[in-house]
Amino acid sequence: MEQPQLQIIGRLHGDILSREEAPKNYSESERVGTLEIYPEFAAGLEGIVAGQTIVVLFWLDRAQRDILRVYPRGDRSRGLCGVFATRSPVRPNPIAISELKVLAVRGNELEVAGLDILDGTPIVDLKKKISP
Amino acid sequence: MEQPQLQIIGRLHGDILSREEAPKNYSESERVGTLEIYPEFAAGLEGIVAGQTIVVLFWLDRAQRDILRVYPRGDRSRGLCGVFATRSPVRPNPIAISELKVLAVRGNELEVAGLDILDGTPIVDLKKKISP
Repeated sequence: MEQPQLQIIGRLHGDILSREEAPKNYSESERVGTLEIYPEFAAGLEGIVAGQTIVVLFWLDRAQRDILRVYPRGDRSRGLCGVFATRSPVRPNPIAISELKVLAVRGNELEVAGLDILDGTPIVDLKKKISP
Repeated sequence: MEQPQLQIIGRLHGDILSREEAPKNYSESERVGTLEIYPEFAAGLEGIVAGQTIVVLFWLDRAQRDILRVYPRGDRSRGLCGVFATRSPVRPNPIAISELKVLAVRGNELEVAGLDILDGTPIVDLKKKISP
């Protein structure tokens, strides 16, 4: 079976240093940080402006990839659940989706709000948000 | 720089055979198809039920990865735009995000509606949708 290779396009600089400190998800967070996009990918940022909400895909490089069932948010009373029915970071391909508000654009760096992701996490994609 | 490897967890079976036939995005589509999850990953589906909306990540294996600026939806009048400001399939890591309605669950297959993705496209992740 083919195994596509991701390219790391940048890295998050933030103030969340452990999973215990992380908000449950982006919709419950106001945490601010910086998306550093590496210079060789910076041309892809053209058109992103302060004030808009963007979709960001992170590669959760510290998450386990060999577990298929988890206790949702560590609550054992609800029983085990398949990882694909959750947003647990644990999954075969640990890609996180965040919707982040762009506070400022400075060259190849975006200051964003709404983070629930650990400092230093690799970035693999940014997208326009579809209007709801 | 590290290059993480994705694992293909399954494949889409649908009736969209070319990009010209594809709806602009999932929010404008009622197209129905089947997500086949490979048996070794099927335990991850536990807890997904008919009627819910799930988030699905596809690996767009026929998209170009070496282009950073595009004409949005082929409209040259608006000028070139960075791929990260768009939802173009063209991008360094061609991962598409769809929100799909689950019509039925049959073992390791999910029948879903809302597709804008080509038949045969590899699946890399499924997630719970965050309630808006």
